[in-house]
Amino acid sequence: MNKTRVAVIGATGYTGAELLRLLSQHPNVTITCVTSEQSAGRPLAERLPFLSGCAELTLEAFDLAGVTARADFIFTALAHTQAMDLVQALVQAGKKVVDLSADFRFRSATLYKKVYGLPHRQPALLKRAVYGLTEIHRKQIARANLTANPGCYPTGALLPIYPYLVAGVVDSAREMIIDAKSGISGAGRTPTPATHFPEIHEGMTAYNIGTHRHQPEIVQALSQVQKGAILFTPYLLPVNRGILTTVYLPLSQPLSQRRLSDILDNAYGNEPFIRHVSGSPNLSSVRGANFCDIGVFASGRYALLISAIDNLVKGAAGQAIQNMNVMMNWPETLGLKAPGLFP
Amino acid sequence: MNKTRVAVIGATGYTGAELLRLLSQHPNVTITCVTSEQSAGRPLAERLPFLSGCAELTLEAFDLAGVTARADFIFTALAHTQAMDLVQALVQAGKKVVDLSADFRFRSATLYKKVYGLPHRQPALLKRAVYGLTEIHRKQIARANLTANPGCYPTGALLPIYPYLVAGVVDSAREMIIDAKSGISGAGRTPTPATHFPEIHEGMTAYNIGTHRHQPEIVQALSQVQKGAILFTPYLLPVNRGILTTVYLPLSQPLSQRRLSDILDNAYGNEPFIRHVSGSPNLSSVRGANFCDIGVFASGRYALLISAIDNLVKGAAGQAIQNMNVMMNWPETLGLKAPGLFP
Amino acid sequence: MNKTRVAVIGATGYTGAELLRLLSQHPNVTITCVTSEQSAGRPLAERLPFLSGCAELTLEAFDLAGVTARADFIFTALAHTQAMDLVQALVQAGKKVVDLSADFRFRSATLYKKVYGLPHRQPALLKRAVYGLTEIHRKQIARANLTANPGCYPTGALLPIYPYLVAGVVDSAREMIIDAKSGISGAGRTPTPATHFPEIHEGMTAYNIGTHRHQPEIVQALSQVQKGAILFTPYLLPVNRGILTTVYLPLSQPLSQRRLSDILDNAYGNEPFIRHVSGSPNLSSVRGANFCDIGVFASGRYALLISAIDNLVKGAAGQAIQNMNVMMNWPETLGLKAPGLFP
Amino acid sequence: MNKTRVAVIGATGYTGAELLRLLSQHPNVTITCVTSEQSAGRPLAERLPFLSGCAELTLEAFDLAGVTARADFIFTALAHTQAMDLVQALVQAGKKVVDLSADFRFRSATLYKKVYGLPHRQPALLKRAVYGLTEIHRKQIARANLTANPGCYPTGALLPIYPYLVAGVVDSAREMIIDAKSGISGAGRTPTPATHFPEIHEGMTAYNIGTHRHQPEIVQALSQVQKGAILFTPYLLPVNRGILTTVYLPLSQPLSQRRLSDILDNAYGNEPFIRHVSGSPNLSSVRGANFCDIGVFASGRYALLISAIDNLVKGAAGQAIQNMNVMMNWPETLGLKAPGLFP
Repeated sequence: MNKTRVAVIGATGYTGAELLRLLSQHPNVTITCVTSEQSAGRPLAERLPFLSGCAELTLEAFDLAGVTARADFIFTALAHTQAMDLVQALVQAGKKVVDLSADFRFRSATLYKKVYGLPHRQPALLKRAVYGLTEIHRKQIARANLTANPGCYPTGALLPIYPYLVAGVVDSAREMIIDAKSGISGAGRTPTPATHFPEIHEGMTAYNIGTHRHQPEIVQALSQVQKGAILFTPYLLPVNRGILTTVYLPLSQPLSQRRLSDILDNAYGNEPFIRHVSGSPNLSSVRGANFCDIGVFASGRYALLISAIDNLVKGAAGQAIQNMNVMMNWPETLGLKAPGLFP
Repeated sequence: MNKTRVAVIGATGYTGAELLRLLSQHPNVTITCVTSEQSAGRPLAERLPFLSGCAELTLEAFDLAGVTARADFIFTALAHTQAMDLVQALVQAGKKVVDLSADFRFRSATLYKKVYGLPHRQPALLKRAVYGLTEIHRKQIARANLTANPGCYPTGALLPIYPYLVAGVVDSAREMIIDAKSGISGAGRTPTPATHFPEIHEGMTAYNIGTHRHQPEIVQALSQVQKGAILFTPYLLPVNRGILTTVYLPLSQPLSQRRLSDILDNAYGNEPFIRHVSGSPNLSSVRGANFCDIGVFASGRYALLISAIDNLVKGAAGQAIQNMNVMMNWPETLGLKAPGLFP
Repeated sequence: MNKTRVAVIGATGYTGAELLRLLSQHPNVTITCVTSEQSAGRPLAERLPFLSGCAELTLEAFDLAGVTARADFIFTALAHTQAMDLVQALVQAGKKVVDLSADFRFRSATLYKKVYGLPHRQPALLKRAVYGLTEIHRKQIARANLTANPGCYPTGALLPIYPYLVAGVVDSAREMIIDAKSGISGAGRTPTPATHFPEIHEGMTAYNIGTHRHQPEIVQALSQVQKGAILFTPYLLPVNRGILTTVYLPLSQPLSQRRLSDILDNAYGNEPFIRHVSGSPNLSSVRGANFCDIGVFASGRYALLISAIDNLVKGAAGQAIQNMNVMMNWPETLGLKAPGLFP
Repeated sequence: MNKTRVAVIGATGYTGAELLRLLSQHPNVTITCVTSEQSAGRPLAERLPFLSGCAELTLEAFDLAGVTARADFIFTALAHTQAMDLVQALVQAGKKVVDLSADFRFRSATLYKKVYGLPHRQPALLKRAVYGLTEIHRKQIARANLTANPGCYPTGALLPIYPYLVAGVVDSAREMIIDAKSGISGAGRTPTPATHFPEIHEGMTAYNIGTHRHQPEIVQALSQVQKGAILFTPYLLPVNRGILTTVYLPLSQPLSQRRLSDILDNAYGNEPFIRHVSGSPNLSSVRGANFCDIGVFASGRYALLISAIDNLVKGAAGQAIQNMNVMMNWPETLGLKAPGLFP
């Protein structure tokens, strides 16, 4: 079989690097094009030495004609607001795209403007984009030309919550509390005072309380099943990778541990990338892997849900490839079956 | 002035070490006795090299006559169940004691047995011990011969909660949610599979969900003001020191940011060791210091409270010395004014 | 093609876990047997949750008949002194074995006794075992039934040194200095006071100066080309994985940067797992990968060599699988081509 | 007694912050002036929250008249090249100064230009500045108006080496090898790609091999006793604080462990801040303290020396205050006796 030619637009950030790590092991694709505006003309391995010997490519500036001529499937891993026009052009050119930015995650251009601060320039395409939480939106993704890959926090929060919403056991009159601790790679590769090593190491702090841009993304996704208020608190955790999300889920009435477990198993029993664990999940068990580990604990009028994902894999590049597999009608686990790295 | 002679019983654990670090800089005391059953006869600096040149002492086995002859004030830093008889003997001998174990924290011997699994052997003394959350129980501590130093998690949770309970703004019909992330020194100095470096580093997990022994301690303390249910989730965080506690506090009615701030300021405006910070507290700012940093955020029907303490200082040795200062009628900040270590 | 059935004896330590991680992705093998004396009868994923969904196996106690009936190729990942009899029995039964313990690394039973403190019980087999530094001993490994997998420190030190020894440019009258910094997984999975998280984190120390058991292993290997004295200093580094080894190599006469680079390239230009990097190697670039990155710097009468390996991959499980590939006459890179994890 | 008024010029970097941490506990001084060009007019605690409640000051832009009117002793903690004119003006105004930049460390303006790339604008003052390695240059420091505080690497290297040079046991015909591992605070507080958290954490790399600016500083200091070549290799270590320096010191003839220990003890037996430890020093034991821990090991024709310092304390702010104490004819340990933070 001929391999599908893929491009990664924005290859030198952490998300781009992770796409390349995983794609280099994917049996059905060949990476034909990697772009970086800052490092165009340089060997990929100069910016990402860990890929030396694994993906020998030269970085290039983005060029629409060049990319469309040489790639059939495109991952865009750019900062929000930078992806929208480029994605539109790629889709227009007949390509399938998974966009890992936030540009196509909202259904409403109005909401986009409110959250990201500038008008959406491709509102028509926005309407057609599919939100790519694979386990939930698989059918729509299979038919999509453009999948908007979910944010890392939304992925870690929505996957454990969905089964309970769908089961109709959530009390919408009380707030859902989402307390989510993220490793620093989630902040991207650009150095900032807040992510300078000594400011982070041996520290921990919350940030963007009540104002994080992933909060409306979570609200939008939940409201498709049942409306309700959420409190969302994100934290910077002194690890490279991983999001540990704790959800305090208000129940209409107390449920037994058994019942809570059954709801999870009924929803995800056949899912290859969701593991129902008996105690608390641990970031150590998902590092580098596409799993979302979930534990559930009966707590009176609450279900306590804890999920662990690798923000760069299930929270970004891994889910993006899972979405590609679905869009291409390939086995969903292709190229994603490797265990994580422990310790 | 003659210095007060102090002993540290159980000197080689992390809490004992921290007591010695702080006491070595305290102007009113001289350390006369440090005990360790395992390392009796060995120089202190052999087990705690960082104290070499700062506290030149020899470890000895505990001997009641020896300790009472040479010390006026005693800190007991033993594991729970091991302190109770020894503390009773010291108090009986007329000494003032701060006990850092859990043995005298409960008001009820029945509760103690339920939580720690064996009968309390000194129930009479248990009745007389004062719970040493300094900012709250200062008056009783001043008259106490025995102060039970609070647990680290209870300290981090109770200090932010108390002002709101006392102000009568908490809705007791809804659960208080306490999500508390602790550094590994809180688990003590004895190696275990769970605290082996590679198991912890780059990981994060919750543990003892719904069963942690600090939960009934928190409940007991809160119930003195207002009864109500709590959910308490502790986590192991890959840092040496610090507890970051987030409290989702249900309010009887929504309060403004201004009103929430005022409640905190009214309660703690004159407290030397409580800092009301404007954003989220960060463990980095309290490392090695006796501060409890608190941030409060209006969130609809909730107040979101975040506190940061160093579990070994404000959560253990620092608060113990603060309690000593109160019990001795010394200025409360004596020996505790040094800033923490940043970065 | 039928897959080769492999067993991992001692599956729950870090080396065993890493073997399973890599073998689960190897196209030519199927894991049929995993042993653990302590956890016999338990699911593998209970001890190694990261493997859940990737390698669903049940741990069993070692049983010679059972292992030989169900496996064709065996990896033994036991502590030194525990492997020798068992390995002998497996080889006797006609199996091919890679032993990851130290039991078959020395050519001399006398030296083994001196270093490991007890007599070697299988001296005849010891003579026949091949030392498995793959890049150097490939031909002998291809014919071996028993390969003794090198220690992690020796791998990190010998690979950069060999080309210069072979090229005849090393001054044997002066000491080779090897300064090697290792992550904590190198100390194994059993908790000890020295590897308790707070004792390691934010610290660094040397240990076993002049007495580390890998020193005579390095000396033996070097002396096959040219005798000479070495100074070897190992350190505990607060990371999970990786050894960064710096070698100060005394030269018979100063050599140019160009000449030093050429020697390296001539030796390793075609090696798939050795990367000659232009600056200093970084542990970040080899984490989880089977690469040995090497940098060389002209420094007057010295060549300064720096190598980076993942101690669990190229320093243990990865090299063991590389050796299996050679012993089975498979492509040497089979199952080992995945890039590492960055960041 | 009236307290001496001190100013810290460049207060918001890590070195400035550490000066303030230590000075806030110094019994003989009061901090009257803290400067920052970027944050002039802002409360100090806004940039350094850990100092809130410990040092309530307002940052101001540097103003010569203002500083000289309000301070008697000045610490300059600016980047190299930025300190020289300002220091000249302060000394000219009759102030005593400890400069923590590199601007006055070299004896020769020619060397300064060669290393730092621009001409020295105050060559006359350069001649009069005293190099402030306190234990070695105490007498000159006592008479100095301007002390050039040594670099962190030079401090960690020179303290263990000096006694052996002075004892005349070093073979000047062979290279001294200095392998020095530094925490990231040594790189300063300005974020860079190389010090972004995920690039550092779980990694380790050497840098500036043969070209680090501290190398000529070490050479200059050593050459005052005995000329000789050095190889100097610095590394970035994933910890906040600390330098672990290993020196492979060539001896004219092999010396016994006893003799090597005696040389160290004879030199430093009465030094309050140098501790001769029996095994390897550990960064954990000097974190936050002004100690230099040294271990020495006989290794044939080499002495193996290992030192541990906190780069921000003994390697910067602590030594600067020690120098102030000497310059002011105060007890040398004033304000510096607190133990470090463990764990």
